[in-house]
This record gives sequence, C-alpha cells and structure tokens, in this order.
Amino acid sequence: MTSEHPLVGELRTVLAPEQLVTDAEVTGSYAHDEAEWAAHGVPLVVVRARTTQDVQSVVQACLRHGVPVVTRGAGTGLSGGANAVEGCVLLSTEQMTQIREINPTERLAVVQPGVVNDHLRAACAEEGLWYPPDPASSPWSTIGGNVATNAGGLCCVKYGVTRDYVLALEVVTGTGEVVRLGRRTAKGVAGYDLVGLMVGSEGTLGVVTEVTVRLRGARDPERTVAGYFDTVVAAGEAVAAIGAAGIVPSALELIDRHCLAAVDQWKNMGLSVDANVVLLGRSDAPGAAGDAEAAAMLACFEGAGATWAAQSTDQEEADALFAARRLAYPALERLGAVLTEDVCVPKSAVPEMLARVEAAAARNNILIANIAHAGDGNLHPLMIVPPDDTAARDRAQTAFEEIIGDALELGGTVTGEHGIGLLKRAGLTQELAPEVMAMQRAVKAALDPHDVLNPGKVL
Amino acid sequence: MTSEHPLVGELRTVLAPEQLVTDAEVTGSYAHDEAEWAAHGVPLVVVRARTTQDVQSVVQACLRHGVPVVTRGAGTGLSGGANAVEGCVLLSTEQMTQIREINPTERLAVVQPGVVNDHLRAACAEEGLWYPPDPASSPWSTIGGNVATNAGGLCCVKYGVTRDYVLALEVVTGTGEVVRLGRRTAKGVAGYDLVGLMVGSEGTLGVVTEVTVRLRGARDPERTVAGYFDTVVAAGEAVAAIGAAGIVPSALELIDRHCLAAVDQWKNMGLSVDANVVLLGRSDAPGAAGDAEAAAMLACFEGAGATWAAQSTDQEEADALFAARRLAYPALERLGAVLTEDVCVPKSAVPEMLARVEAAAARNNILIANIAHAGDGNLHPLMIVPPDDTAARDRAQTAFEEIIGDALELGGTVTGEHGIGLLKRAGLTQELAPEVMAMQRAVKAALDPHDVLNPGKVL
Repeated sequence: MTSEHPLVGELRTVLAPEQLVTDAEVTGSYAHDEAEWAAHGVPLVVVRARTTQDVQSVVQACLRHGVPVVTRGAGTGLSGGANAVEGCVLLSTEQMTQIREINPTERLAVVQPGVVNDHLRAACAEEGLWYPPDPASSPWSTIGGNVATNAGGLCCVKYGVTRDYVLALEVVTGTGEVVRLGRRTAKGVAGYDLVGLMVGSEGTLGVVTEVTVRLRGARDPERTVAGYFDTVVAAGEAVAAIGAAGIVPSALELIDRHCLAAVDQWKNMGLSVDANVVLLGRSDAPGAAGDAEAAAMLACFEGAGATWAAQSTDQEEADALFAARRLAYPALERLGAVLTEDVCVPKSAVPEMLARVEAAAARNNILIANIAHAGDGNLHPLMIVPPDDTAARDRAQTAFEEIIGDALELGGTVTGEHGIGLLKRAGLTQELAPEVMAMQRAVKAALDPHDVLNPGKVL
Repeated sequence: MTSEHPLVGELRTVLAPEQLVTDAEVTGSYAHDEAEWAAHGVPLVVVRARTTQDVQSVVQACLRHGVPVVTRGAGTGLSGGANAVEGCVLLSTEQMTQIREINPTERLAVVQPGVVNDHLRAACAEEGLWYPPDPASSPWSTIGGNVATNAGGLCCVKYGVTRDYVLALEVVTGTGEVVRLGRRTAKGVAGYDLVGLMVGSEGTLGVVTEVTVRLRGARDPERTVAGYFDTVVAAGEAVAAIGAAGIVPSALELIDRHCLAAVDQWKNMGLSVDANVVLLGRSDAPGAAGDAEAAAMLACFEGAGATWAAQSTDQEEADALFAARRLAYPALERLGAVLTEDVCVPKSAVPEMLARVEAAAARNNILIANIAHAGDGNLHPLMIVPPDDTAARDRAQTAFEEIIGDALELGGTVTGEHGIGLLKRAGLTQELAPEVMAMQRAVKAALDPHDVLNPGKVL
C-alpha cells in the first residue's frame, strides 16, 4: 500500500470521509469529460464539495502543496476543459445543488454551481420565469459548468449565451480567497467586469461557488417550422436567407440524417424522416407576429429548395424532433469515437462552411455527421471513427484541423460555445494574434499567480 | 516662450500640424468632462487622432517619455473619467468618425470611436436596423465614449447596455500594440472575454480605435403611458409594482418637477405638467401584447396613487416629454453647479431609495432634483448648488456620500452607468472587498504594466 499524499491527509481533517474519493475505479470516471479525444491524467483525489468553505479548503490546500485543482460539474464538456491534470485534486461541485433564491420581482435566481440546468429551468417555470441558456446537455449539465464554458444552446440565436445572464458570482480565487463579484442590480459599472471575465474561463481564473443569474418572464408558446433538404448546402442557404430577411428565430437547428438515424436506432422514436438534412425553425413572437415569422421562415426554406416544408401542427412531433436534436451527440457516441467540432462562422458563410465540411469528409474519407445551431452560424460537424481504427482517427484529426482553418478563413471562430479546453488550444493560437495571446496570459497570471487553477487548459 | 516638450516635437514628425493643439485656451476646453465637481489637470498637448496609426503613435510616444495618455470622446462623461491628468497627452477621438460597415445580414456595424451615438442610430435606421444603447447624451456622445463607460440609457431596461452590443474591438494596448479582440460571429468563446473587460474600463486598459457592434432589427412603434404623482416615493411604488407584475417596459423614466421646470425655462417646450413627479413608461411589444403591456403599466400607476395617468394618444406630446428627460441634465447645469449621482438599486428598493434621497436633501438643506431610469433602479439624484456657495457645496458632498451609503445598504451599486472616473473612487472601495480591489489592480497592472493609460482613474 502506498502512503497517502499529505494533501489528502490535510483534507481529511476538514471534510467528511465520503467527500474524498481515492478509489481508482471511481476517480477514473471523474478523470475526463465527454471530449473523448482529449488526453487526461489520473487525479490524486476526487473531492465532492458541498459548501463554499469546502472549496476554499481545497484551493488553499492545493496552494500550500503546489498541487493543481481541476474543477468539474457534470462532466458533459466537449473540449477536455474538465479533464484531470496528472496528480491533481479533481474538485467536483455536483453535490452543491441548492437553489437559494428565485426572485420574481428582481427576476434573478441564486444557485450553487452543481444545480442541473434543467432543474433550474423547471424551478423558474413554477414562478412563471425562464432561464434561457439551454445547451443540448441541459438535462445533465450544471450551471457551474455552463458558467465555466459560457455555454450556448438552442435558444441563444435569439436570447444570447450564459454570459448574458450571469449577474454575480461567488468565487474562490487563485489565492484562496472567497470573493463576491458583480451585483444584484439590473445595471452596474463599478470597476472592471470580472464576472464576464470569469464566465467562459473554464476554471482557470477562479472556482465558482455561487451564481446569480438574470431571468426572463415565461415566453409565448413556440411555433415550429420544419424543412427537408437534399443537401446541407441547400439547408445552409435557407439559413443565410433567414438572416438576410432579418428574421430572428427563437431556434434554428440543423440535423442531418446520420444524427437522426443514430437517435432513432437508440431510442426508437419513430423519426421517419425522408430527408438528408432537416432544418427546424421556431418562433416565440406573440400572436400575429409569430404567425408572420413562421410564414417568413417557411418561405425561406422553400426558396432555398426544400423538398418539403411545413409549419408543424403537431406539438408532439415538433418536440420529438427537438428531443432528437438534443440526443444526437450521445446517440452518435454509441457508434464510435466522436470528435466534435464547434466552429462558428458569419451567417452568410454558413452554406460555404457546410460545403467545406463535406469536402473535408470526402477528402479524408471519414464520416462527418452534422448538427448545427445554424441560426447563429455555430456548426458541430461530428467526426465518427470506428473503434480502434487508428488510420481513420488520424484522418479525422486532419479533417478537424482543416475545418478550423476553413472557419477562420471565412471570418469565423474556432469555438462557438464548447470552449478551448485541450482540443482547441492550437486553434486558439491560430485565431488570436501573438499580442492577444500575451494579453490572455497576462490576465491568467494576474488572477492565478501560482498557476494552481486548471493549469494547461485554454492557454 | 517655454521650449516645447520633446514628446510634442516627436508627435509633430508623424501628425499634421492641425492635429496637435497646445494653445491653452483650446486645451482648457478638453481638460474635463461634464463632471463639474471632479478635479482635472492641464494637458501638455491635445492630439486629434484620425487613424489607428495616429493613436498608436501617441501611445508609443507616451510610453517612451513616461507621459500619461488620457483618451476622450465628446467629453459628456459625468464622473471625471476623461479629465486631464496633469501634463498628459489628451487624446481626442472626435475626428475618428467613419462608419465603416453596416451589415444587415450579420446585423452588425463597424465604426471608428468618434462616431456620435445618434449618427450611428440614424445610419442603422436607414437599413431598417437599430443600435439600442441610448444614453441621454446620445445627440453628442460618441460610441468610443459609450464603450469606455459601458453606457446605459433609456431603453436598457429592456435591451441592455453597451457591453451587450459590443462584439469586437480594435485596441491600442498599454504596450503600444494594435490588437483585434472579439469576433464578428454571433457566438464565440475563444479565450478570456477581453472585449467585455475593455468595455467600461474608461480608457485605463487600452485605447479603442474601432468598434464592432451588434444590431437589432427596427422595432415596433412604442406606446407611451404617463403618470403624475405627488411624491417621488409614490412614483417609486409604481416602479416596484411594474417589476412585481413581471412587466418589462421598453423605457420607464422618472422626472421630477425641478427637472421639467428647468427644461421648460430653457427651451420653452410648454411642458405644462401639474405634478411633482412624472413617470413615463413605454412598450414596444407588437400588436395586442403592446396594448396589454401599456394597460398593465397604467394599472400599476393608478394602483400606486397616480393623481393622473393615461396612455398618450399624442405622439408629439409623448416625444416632448422624453426630449425633456434627455435635456434635464444640461438644463439643470444652467442653474448652478450640479453634482450627479448614479446609484442603482434592486427594483423593489426603489421607493425606499427615493425616500432616502429626499431625507438626504432635507437633512443637508440642499436641492436635489431627480431623474431616474426607474425601471432598472438606476437613480440620478442631481444636487444643485448656487454658484460660489461653498457651504452648500460641502453639504451637497455630504449628501452625495450619504446616498452612496444608502444605495449600498439596500443592495445596490455606487454606479449604474456613469462609471467610477474620479467621483466614485471612494465609493468603489466601499462597494468592493479589498480582495476584489486587489483583483482589479492586478488586471490593470497586467494590461497596462507601465501605468500609462489614464492613470489614477477608476482604481
């Protein structure tokens, strides 16, 4: 038996035994997120924090021992941001699940980071309120993880991303202090926007222990418009046409038949879709405005050559298509190793980008399935490789890099919503000038001077 | 004749003669913003930049000579953020007025920082687009200044503040480099949010030389609801009731009779308002939803004891009231020295905060006029002091500080939208914990290591 690391011994004096996990079988399941292709180390210990004080104890102990701390929510990330660094303390916030306040007058909620996105949304709905950010992982992912990655989702084409909803944070800093950043008021400009800086920083600038989010009122029921297309490029043209027409749908999703087939095979949802590509548009504008918006989307679908398009009259059918969209990623994972892209391009470049994705698939002889938050140009080409096919894996990696290059060439970004983590570190240096990388590093060094917080990620 | 500072000589080699102003009569008018009570020094030289290259030349020369650079747009700021530091280069961006792009498909505009807010809005309107942030200074203030202060405005109760609209920036850094931050895509999470950090940093982290803003489509015509109240507290209760009812107006402004009288006296607008306090609510919801929202606001006005309330049927009259709101500050300035507050409190605390402002006025025996972006709890008590009345000035200063204390006690912030500048530096240290102040300073040191950018402001 190897002797225990003194850091673990120290943590035993302040945490309950069940909060500390060193059993390799269990810690292994905490060692990586859903980015199957990203490397990960073996954590020294997994800590299940329950309170801010627990988190502070962990960060302070890590500082004393020079051991990195990697924070993790539900582990649904897709870029390796929460992957264990060798010998780290893997700090799980999954047990920090309190919803502390839902305030209808101020339209805000205060939650611990381990609250699952859908749980918060359900609790808000009971008060006639709505927390918009809805990553496809919303049934599992946590608000803390959403904050760490600045998660997007389906409705952000109209309602923005996680950062747009975070008013205040409690954070344990890189020097082990507990601080409150931001405000509860509608507006405020007291000092630099440290809240915005923390959001999307993937646990590299602080550990979030409480989140205050802005809420909206419950919205009107959505109308759904579906369109079938023969090619992804035709669907992309419909997306560009919707942008050019000045329509802002409440969702505009693209799913190709590989995704639909994988979901159907898994869940038997009876998605009898006879199309290569499906576009799903939604409008939540009230009354006649919503009717007009749905009709205008339909016209764009038809104008771009949809083989079939209609406003759904069957809410169940419409919901099933959106559920399939959400399940696409886990469904594809059952078929092989999935390498997920997350490029985002200007709306007008969506058709060209989709054509380039197809070209990359053909050129590299690999299967690329497509799901996309098409309305904001955020594409998720999914490279699927048979298990243990090393050559195919290499070809997929080549396609992954080519797609990044294409997105940058078209004025896009290497990551729309999944974050840099480990998978996009090279992409980041392609996107940002050396001077900007230096600014990024200067900010990291300023707020995490001992490089204890998730080192090696993002930068 | 004193010999010229070598820095000025250097600038002469790269800038046109008319871009450099050393005549004390002219430089004096550039030495301060509208925060009459904030101290300012005498600039060494005023530089009227026209290009990014001009700005870079100035920052690099300042770095070489260890001379501070203070950047200024139109000088309509209300916290002294653009006030000259003694011996600084005062860098004016007022001649950087190019609108480089208005893109309807991507819904964005690219402008130089000297573009006046209303000019951008007018240019967007021609394309059926809308740039929402609308500080009361919009006929004069520049986008660069709006970015520097993260300006709010009348419509931000529904549509958010400047930061919510800035997608990308070109910036000359504290080390004299030109960098591009942010993106043109709808979403993006490539690295830390340096754009959000720059917005509201009052020229202390970089000099903005180009701004890419997000646009919205032109909105539906607004309905206006006006209510007269005997007391500011009753008006505050109407505001709290609107919040509690879940109504999100497109504007909700409070103006008291001191402001209305001052505007009328100046502009002869015929504002024959027989009320101590006026609330102006607006709804831009389309169709029946807008009617319902206006009716609901009216009910809140009446429920809170309005002496008169009605939906305006006369657009001209409604516009005149909003114009009066915009003119309140310059109108009051004609009556004496104005010290402007900018506290922001939770919506439910608006009545209590307004009562405390009244108490501060009575206790200190000074005139406090009130305008407020009431819908988001952002109050602007305006302390007006007769010229050369030193004792009254001291009493106003006391009231100013008491109001800050009250706002913090009620869970508010010391500045909702005007920024820290010079006037709120003490307030900032009251609001932020010492550990957070240290984080703020660390960020400043990271991005402006030579402390050349607007030193002494904010922190």
